[in-house]
Amino acid sequence: MAEDKKLVEAITSMEEDFAQWYTDVVKKADLMCYSSVKGCMIFKPDGYAIWENIQHELDRRFKATGVKNVYMPMFIPESLLQREKDHVEGFAPEVAWVTEGGLQPLQEKMCVRPTSETLFCDYYKNEIQSYRDLPQLCNQWCSVVRWEKETRPFLRSREFLWQEGHTAHATAEEAEARTQQMLNLYADFVEEVLAIPVIKGRKTDKEKFAGAEATYTIEALMHDGKALQSGTSHNFGDGFAKAFGIQYTDKDNKLKYVHQTSWGMTTRLIGALIMVHGDNSGLVLPPRIAPVQVCIVPVMQKKPGVLDKAFEIKEVLSNFRVKVDDSDKSPGWKFSEQEMRGIPLRIEMGPRDIEANQAVLVRRDNGEKITVSLDEIDVRVGELLEIIQKEMLERARKHRDSHTTVALNYDEFKDAVANKPGFIKAMWCGNQECEDKIKEETTATSRCMPFEQEHLSDVCVCCGRPAKAMVYWGKAY
Amino acid sequence: MAEDKKLVEAITSMEEDFAQWYTDVVKKADLMCYSSVKGCMIFKPDGYAIWENIQHELDRRFKATGVKNVYMPMFIPESLLQREKDHVEGFAPEVAWVTEGGLQPLQEKMCVRPTSETLFCDYYKNEIQSYRDLPQLCNQWCSVVRWEKETRPFLRSREFLWQEGHTAHATAEEAEARTQQMLNLYADFVEEVLAIPVIKGRKTDKEKFAGAEATYTIEALMHDGKALQSGTSHNFGDGFAKAFGIQYTDKDNKLKYVHQTSWGMTTRLIGALIMVHGDNSGLVLPPRIAPVQVCIVPVMQKKPGVLDKAFEIKEVLSNFRVKVDDSDKSPGWKFSEQEMRGIPLRIEMGPRDIEANQAVLVRRDNGEKITVSLDEIDVRVGELLEIIQKEMLERARKHRDSHTTVALNYDEFKDAVANKPGFIKAMWCGNQECEDKIKEETTATSRCMPFEQEHLSDVCVCCGRPAKAMVYWGKAY
Repeated sequence: MAEDKKLVEAITSMEEDFAQWYTDVVKKADLMCYSSVKGCMIFKPDGYAIWENIQHELDRRFKATGVKNVYMPMFIPESLLQREKDHVEGFAPEVAWVTEGGLQPLQEKMCVRPTSETLFCDYYKNEIQSYRDLPQLCNQWCSVVRWEKETRPFLRSREFLWQEGHTAHATAEEAEARTQQMLNLYADFVEEVLAIPVIKGRKTDKEKFAGAEATYTIEALMHDGKALQSGTSHNFGDGFAKAFGIQYTDKDNKLKYVHQTSWGMTTRLIGALIMVHGDNSGLVLPPRIAPVQVCIVPVMQKKPGVLDKAFEIKEVLSNFRVKVDDSDKSPGWKFSEQEMRGIPLRIEMGPRDIEANQAVLVRRDNGEKITVSLDEIDVRVGELLEIIQKEMLERARKHRDSHTTVALNYDEFKDAVANKPGFIKAMWCGNQECEDKIKEETTATSRCMPFEQEHLSDVCVCCGRPAKAMVYWGKAY
Repeated sequence: MAEDKKLVEAITSMEEDFAQWYTDVVKKADLMCYSSVKGCMIFKPDGYAIWENIQHELDRRFKATGVKNVYMPMFIPESLLQREKDHVEGFAPEVAWVTEGGLQPLQEKMCVRPTSETLFCDYYKNEIQSYRDLPQLCNQWCSVVRWEKETRPFLRSREFLWQEGHTAHATAEEAEARTQQMLNLYADFVEEVLAIPVIKGRKTDKEKFAGAEATYTIEALMHDGKALQSGTSHNFGDGFAKAFGIQYTDKDNKLKYVHQTSWGMTTRLIGALIMVHGDNSGLVLPPRIAPVQVCIVPVMQKKPGVLDKAFEIKEVLSNFRVKVDDSDKSPGWKFSEQEMRGIPLRIEMGPRDIEANQAVLVRRDNGEKITVSLDEIDVRVGELLEIIQKEMLERARKHRDSHTTVALNYDEFKDAVANKPGFIKAMWCGNQECEDKIKEETTATSRCMPFEQEHLSDVCVCCGRPAKAMVYWGKAY
């Protein structure tokens, strides 16, 4: 059977070839596949279900802070995209242009949104008249298009799914507070739900978003020691407001410009989940985000009573997302499949277990087997899922901390990039020349200036001039 | 204040100018606005919240039938769109073409999806090998683009939001059963949740979907007597499978073509809600779909204890979606606003009510006022919302039935189109010539051949030849 063959072939080990391991997991865990549309991917049911859970949980958290969802057009007329100078410079080279519609050439060409700041500004210009109309706290869930040359599943594709929040405020202080609030929300979500520890910090000017005054970021470390930017929050100050003429009449009857923010998270997060938690048996999903949390595998399922008991236990576990694998495959086959798909907990139960009123729980994250009484299985499953969630975060944090190197001079820095995969903490003078030099000579980029600064030394790791900030550096996806 | 002025201006009455009334409601209930992108609209928070509720409820019903969500690329290469002959003829004239990306002309131009049959076929061709891979039951939530010349909010715009389900089956019978299952699901949803009665039936060949063997539809009647196609479900037979080469090896080891369906519902439903239930005070939303079900308006809210009590009652009503309007506007102003926004139930409570341990409930749908004790307010609100939901459906059904005319000959038919807004039931010979003639001479189109056929006469209302079916006719949006 074609289906069997697909899984029986082992995946490449991550030690042998991490990139190939990643591609294998993505395919064999049935998360995505390529389409006839160059550079675009298809989210298959198991991949999209992870995104739905991410959406559900993020959306809940957004709304708890007063954010409301809207939907803007997917097209941006060329003249609108060009309104803010830095923004158009950043995005124009990588957009796709619609030039014909309804069998006619368009009078003005339009790009498919690479991001929607310009559309929200155009909207806010009309919506906002008075201080009473502020703040505006909007978000949209949609796809965006950036014409990338090289693509990788979930990490970089010409079209990807994301959310983009766009807010407008009366004062600079409020905008800054919202920018930080959303970054903290992202960090909490990623740590609590995806079990991925992150570094919170500010991007250097070189790495910030096109048109932003400040970009904050959360940076995660993948298993191979490369960094992944996992969410960003931008403070635009009043730059866009001035370019688009977004003004309000304040209580003092004066006309003032609004201050704006935007913040986004994407389907990259699925890539992060794979590369932080996965192992050589496939995907490993944290319980809180797993579409299926528990897979019940009946052993000798043709014996009378076995399948009935399996479905009975499914009912008992109705507080969890449970699947009974009653297909006609062998138990060993089902075990591998459950492992490949990253289901956090497996319940094995055969006739002898049932006779003894017990089942064997097997943890996906560390392989541990625990025999439990069926009388307390719901409590034990709940406890175990919590423990798995917690220990996956701890394990990822340990990996990150043991893959973070301090470099006090340029030789140490170069040695770290060459020989110690992971983050490098090093001091920086604040000049882009050093950042450019480091990138060119080592391929490491500045990931962020962390909010939690440490004083490692007095001088820049690159030029030896007085240091202004500690920076996390690393090779990145 | 700009905001005040916006609402104080009364809306056009629907008897005076239904089209203007519709536009006024859409704007003053804050559901949408136009953007700088010609023909595209912005879904504002209150409009999008209705769509979110529609999505949530439909998605739950889809998943209960085994459907899973996926996401396909938004682009279709020209060669892929052209694969099925009828399909490309139907859609090519109204697509938007992307011809440049990343500063380069594309080697092959791509359209923005007007619908995704071709993409799903391309996907299924690779996914489906054996009978074990069937059925495939996929859905996606996305936006699609059709380059319309004339547009109207929610009813017709160049980009709109929808869901599109696409399934593949081993047999023709299974595909037909799924096509009907989804039509029934749509009809139940629209009646139970949106309180809109529908006629279920089959489209004539002239009106069916490009590439389909059969298109089933649910047709609703708006307040002005025009019909609105509210959801469609298509059986493609094996036409697309043959065009795309989608075959599977059956249990008998023979290679067979799959049979496919697709089905969709769109943001048109928001237009239907407005035009079926709205009145001259604005929007009227059925409780089950209303983002806010109950609006508490404190009277003399500056008196000590009034606002506290209002928020206390909100807590008591935590099973419902409740808002306290504690803004500094006058109660009368708040009443109009709640009416304009279509909130199903208002609770008025001032110091005297509170002293008497009571509140006044006001129904949006019929203006009825009911004084209830605060001790039983949660029970009474629950009962009333159920009653409102039920009576809104009954009212809409009565309106539809009293606006349905039987025409036995062409004179009666023309008289009905001219003088009796609504559905016309009449017999048809089955020839497209008559359908074309009726459309040309009266502007009425065939809405559907209802599943519940009636024998009104032996002959076609147009040509007098033997009749084959009873058809619902009408002017339509």
